Amino acid sequence: MDINTIANRALKSAGDAVAAEPTAAEKLAALAADEMRAVNALIIERMGSPVPLIPKLGKYLVEAGGKRVRPLVTIAAANMIGYSGDAHLKLAAAVEFIHTATLLHDDVVDDSDLRRGKKAANLVWGNAPSVLVGDFLFARAFMLMVDAGSMEALRSLSRASSVIAEGEVRQLAAKGDIDASVGSYMEIIEAKTAALFASAAEVPAIVAKRSAQEIEALDTYGRELGLAFQLIDDALDYGGLAQNLGKNTGDDFREGKVTIPVVLALQKGTAEEKTFWSRVMADGEQTDGDYEIAMDYLQRHDALRGTIELAAEKANTARTALDIFPDNQWKTALQDLTDFVVQRAS
Amino acid sequence: MDINTIANRALKSAGDAVAAEPTAAEKLAALAADEMRAVNALIIERMGSPVPLIPKLGKYLVEAGGKRVRPLVTIAAANMIGYSGDAHLKLAAAVEFIHTATLLHDDVVDDSDLRRGKKAANLVWGNAPSVLVGDFLFARAFMLMVDAGSMEALRSLSRASSVIAEGEVRQLAAKGDIDASVGSYMEIIEAKTAALFASAAEVPAIVAKRSAQEIEALDTYGRELGLAFQLIDDALDYGGLAQNLGKNTGDDFREGKVTIPVVLALQKGTAEEKTFWSRVMADGEQTDGDYEIAMDYLQRHDALRGTIELAAEKANTARTALDIFPDNQWKTALQDLTDFVVQRAS
Repeated sequence: MDINTIANRALKSAGDAVAAEPTAAEKLAALAADEMRAVNALIIERMGSPVPLIPKLGKYLVEAGGKRVRPLVTIAAANMIGYSGDAHLKLAAAVEFIHTATLLHDDVVDDSDLRRGKKAANLVWGNAPSVLVGDFLFARAFMLMVDAGSMEALRSLSRASSVIAEGEVRQLAAKGDIDASVGSYMEIIEAKTAALFASAAEVPAIVAKRSAQEIEALDTYGRELGLAFQLIDDALDYGGLAQNLGKNTGDDFREGKVTIPVVLALQKGTAEEKTFWSRVMADGEQTDGDYEIAMDYLQRHDALRGTIELAAEKANTARTALDIFPDNQWKTALQDLTDFVVQRAS
Repeated sequence: MDINTIANRALKSAGDAVAAEPTAAEKLAALAADEMRAVNALIIERMGSPVPLIPKLGKYLVEAGGKRVRPLVTIAAANMIGYSGDAHLKLAAAVEFIHTATLLHDDVVDDSDLRRGKKAANLVWGNAPSVLVGDFLFARAFMLMVDAGSMEALRSLSRASSVIAEGEVRQLAAKGDIDASVGSYMEIIEAKTAALFASAAEVPAIVAKRSAQEIEALDTYGRELGLAFQLIDDALDYGGLAQNLGKNTGDDFREGKVTIPVVLALQKGTAEEKTFWSRVMADGEQTDGDYEIAMDYLQRHDALRGTIELAAEKANTARTALDIFPDNQWKTALQDLTDFVVQRAS
């Protein structure tokens, strides 16, 4: 499918009355319902601890929900390739644990207010339990991987974990850097977000001992899907075209995170605009009305549309990577997920 | 050796002019010098990252040094049992990474000022890099374990990592709890400190595929040594009998951590003393001179000596656990290490 077709469809579907029809994510969740129940049971079980604060905080996070996109990708990929074991359930739970651990630590790092539509855990219990329960979940993720029994899957997920941390540190160092290029920004989100999607997608092929080509194809699928996912998240942080994602809009702006909408607006910006971005992002001097000015600049340069188009490009690469696999309902679900991710911002 | 003999020797050796003679730790370090050089090279190499802040912070931590007791235990145990591979080098580096990661996170959790005699990393760079670089080191530890190639060693160290986090959360929850018993305190330090020592000691036997009995004996050695180590650390936080450990004394007191010296003093304390401990620990209301009053109470009830005696008991159990192994210089070095750990507080 043509990139512009995807982008345009994504952009215009905001006006369509599609609310009654299940989204691609909902269809995938329905298809994977039995296995996701098993994954959720594993998540609850492996969050268990005689130390009361741990399951309490864990329950808070689990009930906040989240979309469970990453474990869904693992489950769907396993089914698409016809994997017949059960290691993918443990790996899917491990992937979600790693993700939840990074969220807990991110909230401490970013001083976040909301997470998954609820007050962030660090604001409820303080930074210390968020740091420590994050460590606990991370360790439990590795225990799950050990139980899954594949050293190569462990290699993939431990490397992803290391890359995520590098990406986060790099993002921290890039805070307020209004000279950031599209390329350097893409490297950061590839590390902090796409690496885990890539690993989540490829581990079923690894445990199923498939060919390097199949593993590589799923790695590409996950990576490009993850890039699209993060680009859309960054567009949504400025409201996207819809609203109300349970996450405060303007977080990135307030924190001086120079994400791709800002990079794109800066590329076409006047000297006056540059001065503005430099003040609010690099110097961190923000006053009332600045967010509205920023939104005005983003709209003037079509920066949100540009971001969504970039996401559509990545989503299309993800979709194409699945071409080598035989057709089945899981492949279709994974393909449709690429469109859905982009449509979130519409 | 009789427990009282060890304790008394430890207590009196402060007065001995033993400075010129190498300590047991120094002798062990000399014996393991070549392999520790290889471990240090691995540590530097695996801390590498294209993200400049990571090696910078890593270098800061490495240069601060620390005693490298845990990897030394791994190396010595491997040699004692005649292990001929090289997986123990990677596992020793992994153990040190896990330890360093927990230190970085502890400093954020505790708001520490000093670590290894230097300004704590979170005060130099802020909490965010400490959290993220801790995560990075933790992930790199698992990559090292994957390279070491033993799933069972991974199981041991991932479980230890999970137990450490549980211990830290439990310690956090127990802050200011002046009704803590010796037993609950011991459970906390077994989790937060002794579990990693146990794993560090047993992993060589695991990769060498030794009998369950030998693995168990090394696990016991590490666990009891770790308990002794932590008990002495807690005595040293009140100055022990010596001073100047490069760590601020009084940290635990200021943070309201009810460690064993306080538990022992409370057991024999008057109602007036209890009111004091309740105010400074449970309510966190401390004023000038309170630390001196606390020291007075600890001395009045011989609480530091009591703590050191408990440590000596654990150290002796550690020593005895090695009885099943044939005599060699490594066994002697590991045995002597148990005395040294206790003597640190003398």
